[in-house]
Amino acid sequence: MTAPRVSWKDRILFTPGPLTTSPAVKAAMLRDLGARDSEFLDIVLDVKKRLLKLAGVDKDEYSAVLMQGCGSMGVEATIGCAVPREAGKLLVAVNGAYGRRIVEMARVMHMSAEHIDYPEDRAVVPADIDKALADDRTITHVAVVHCETTSGIFNPIKEVGKIVAKRKRRFIVDAMSSFGASEIKIKQWGIDWLISSANKCIEGVPGFSFVIAENRVLAASAGNSRSLCLDLHAQNEDMKKNGQFRFTPPTHAILAFHQALLELESEGGVDARMKRYQENFRTLRKGMARLGFEEFLTPEDHGWIITSFRYPAHKHFSFNKFYALLRNDGFVIYPGKVGSADLFRVGSIGHITRIDVHGLLDAMRRALKKMDVDMTAGKAAEQ
Amino acid sequence: MTAPRVSWKDRILFTPGPLTTSPAVKAAMLRDLGARDSEFLDIVLDVKKRLLKLAGVDKDEYSAVLMQGCGSMGVEATIGCAVPREAGKLLVAVNGAYGRRIVEMARVMHMSAEHIDYPEDRAVVPADIDKALADDRTITHVAVVHCETTSGIFNPIKEVGKIVAKRKRRFIVDAMSSFGASEIKIKQWGIDWLISSANKCIEGVPGFSFVIAENRVLAASAGNSRSLCLDLHAQNEDMKKNGQFRFTPPTHAILAFHQALLELESEGGVDARMKRYQENFRTLRKGMARLGFEEFLTPEDHGWIITSFRYPAHKHFSFNKFYALLRNDGFVIYPGKVGSADLFRVGSIGHITRIDVHGLLDAMRRALKKMDVDMTAGKAAEQ
Repeated sequence: MTAPRVSWKDRILFTPGPLTTSPAVKAAMLRDLGARDSEFLDIVLDVKKRLLKLAGVDKDEYSAVLMQGCGSMGVEATIGCAVPREAGKLLVAVNGAYGRRIVEMARVMHMSAEHIDYPEDRAVVPADIDKALADDRTITHVAVVHCETTSGIFNPIKEVGKIVAKRKRRFIVDAMSSFGASEIKIKQWGIDWLISSANKCIEGVPGFSFVIAENRVLAASAGNSRSLCLDLHAQNEDMKKNGQFRFTPPTHAILAFHQALLELESEGGVDARMKRYQENFRTLRKGMARLGFEEFLTPEDHGWIITSFRYPAHKHFSFNKFYALLRNDGFVIYPGKVGSADLFRVGSIGHITRIDVHGLLDAMRRALKKMDVDMTAGKAAEQ
Repeated sequence: MTAPRVSWKDRILFTPGPLTTSPAVKAAMLRDLGARDSEFLDIVLDVKKRLLKLAGVDKDEYSAVLMQGCGSMGVEATIGCAVPREAGKLLVAVNGAYGRRIVEMARVMHMSAEHIDYPEDRAVVPADIDKALADDRTITHVAVVHCETTSGIFNPIKEVGKIVAKRKRRFIVDAMSSFGASEIKIKQWGIDWLISSANKCIEGVPGFSFVIAENRVLAASAGNSRSLCLDLHAQNEDMKKNGQFRFTPPTHAILAFHQALLELESEGGVDARMKRYQENFRTLRKGMARLGFEEFLTPEDHGWIITSFRYPAHKHFSFNKFYALLRNDGFVIYPGKVGSADLFRVGSIGHITRIDVHGLLDAMRRALKKMDVDMTAGKAAEQ
C-alpha cells in the first residue's frame, strides 16, 4: 500500500488552529519523556505556573488544569463539572458555531440549559443576559464565547461578567481563540472558568486544552462531572497529590507548549503578541479591501484573530479554485460557511508576521488574475 | 521565572507508554499541516486504511475511528456509545486498574453495570462470564481488558468472545497495550468494539486513541453517546462526509502515528513486532531472575508487554533510590503499586531491543551494588 505523498515544505497557515508554529516549538517534540518521570512533571508544573502568570491570577486563588484532547473537550469538561447535576441550569449566549456547540453539549449531557440566539454578525448583548437572569432565578451558570471563531466577532465578556457577578451566578468563558493575545481580566471581570487550548494564541500544537478556574469554585464542583475522563476536579486533585496526570498525557504536545510559553514571554507577553496579530489583521484588512473583498462583520465588532470575507459576486469566482491556487502558492486559508452567507476566513494568528500576510495578499492577486476575476474595476460589466 | 532544566538526551523508557519512539516518528511532527487541508486529510485516510489492514478486517465491514485525547477517552467513548441509555447493561471483568476504571466510567455516566472481580494476579475466567450472562438476561455488553497493564496479565479474550457471541451480547475489548503486538482476530473472536491507543505497540506518540468497530454495530449506536466530544458514531459519520474531524485533531501526533504505522509494516507487521517484544521480555525475565528479582505473576499468565516484579525483601532496598539510580544511568522504569503488593513494572515495548534490555540489566546490577543489595547470596544473613 503506497503512502500519500506529502510536500517537503509547510504551507503558511492562515487558519484558526492548528497554526503555523515556530521551529523551536516543533523541535521541542523530539523527545520521549516518561509521563511519570520528574523531568516531565517539572515541565508540567512550570507550564501551570506560567499559565496562571499569563492569566494574571494568583496561584493561591486559581488553578490551571490541563485536559487531554481537543479544545472542545475542555469546554465540555468545564460545563460538565461546573453545572451541578440537580440544581444546575446553564444559559448560553449564541452567535456562532461554538456557542451552538455548548448548547449541544448540554443537550447530550441531559443538562438543563437555555440559550439566547443572535445572528452571526451581531455581538452578544449584555442587557439580554441581565434580563434572562432576572426572569429565571433557576439559571446558575452563564457561558459566552469570547471570540466566536465562526465569524471572528468578539463578545463583550467584561460587561457580561459584571452582570453575572451582580446576579450572583457563575461565569464560564470560552476563550479558545483569544486567550494569550487579548486582554482578559479574569478576577476583575468575574470569570469563574476560562477555557483555552494549546494550539491557539500561545502557538503550541494541538493535543490538550487548559482551564483556569477559581480554587473555591473548582473545589465546589467535586462530583458534578458527567464523565470520568473529562472530570476537571478529579484531574486537578490527582495532580495536586503527586504532580502526575490521572491518565496518559500528550507529553510531546506539552513539551511544545512549554517552549511556546517561553517564546510568548520573550516576545513581550500578551500585549506584544496582540500587537503583532493586530498588525497582521490590519495588513490583511487593508490588502483585502484593495483587492475588492468585502468583510462580513461591521468594523466595530471586529477582532484581530480571524476575519470572514464574503465570496465575491463575480461570475468567474470559484472558492475551491481560489483555495487550490493559494494552496499551490504555499498558503492555506480557512473555508467556512456561516449560516446562509458564503464566506471564507483568514486567520491572523500563529507564528506569522505581516510579511507573511503580504505574501498571502500577493498570492491572492495572482489567483484572482488567473481566475480572471477583477473586483476593482468594471464590476457591473462582469456580472 | 527560570524554566526547569531538561537533559539533552532521552532516557530509554521501560514504561507502558508514552514509549521510546523512533527518531523518524518524532521527526514526522516537524510539520504544521492545516487540519482541513487535503495533505492532512490524505494522511488520516491512509492511517484508517492501514489500521483496518493491521486489524485484519475488511473496510466494508469495519471502521477505524480516531478519537482525540488519551486512551481512556477512547474507552469511555466506546462504552458511552455502545451501551444504550435505556435498555443497556454492561458487564465488566476486572483484574486490575484498567478494568476497575471501566466500572468507574459506567458509574459516573449513570450506566447500568455489573462487574466480576478477580485478584490482580489471576486471569479472567470465561466460564464466570458465561454464567453471569445466563443468570442476567438484561446484560447487553461485556467489556474485558486484553492485557491488564496493572500486572501485565493477558486475559483470554478469544474464549470470552466465543461465549459472548453464543449468548448474543456485544463484546468490547480494551486492547490498549496489546494491539499491534499480539494476535487478535477481531471478527473470528466476535469482538464488536476494540480500543487501542497511538502510544502503545504501534509506537506513536500520545494524543489520540482509536476504535475498530463493526459498521453495523457502530451505525446502531447513533444517539447513545453521553458526551458530544466522545461520540464515536458522530465522529465517524462526520468524517465519512468530508474526511474531516469534527473538532481539532492532534495533527502532529497523527503524522507521527502514520510514520509509526509505516515502520511497523517495514518491521514485518504484528508478528515481527510481537517477536521483538517477546525477545525483550525473555531477556528481561532471565536477567531479572539472575539478579534475584521475583515476578508477581505465575509464568502461564504472563504477557510480553509489561512485567511486574516484587520489591526485594532486603533491608537495604529502597525503590525510590533504585529508580533514581537507574534514571541517572539513563533508564526509566515504571513504579506501580498493585493492590497490597509492593511492585515495580518494567515494559518490553517501544522502539527498544534486547540490547537496551541488557543495558537496563547492567544498570540494575550497578544500582543494587551501590545500595549494597545482594539477593543472590546470603539472603537470610542480610535480613
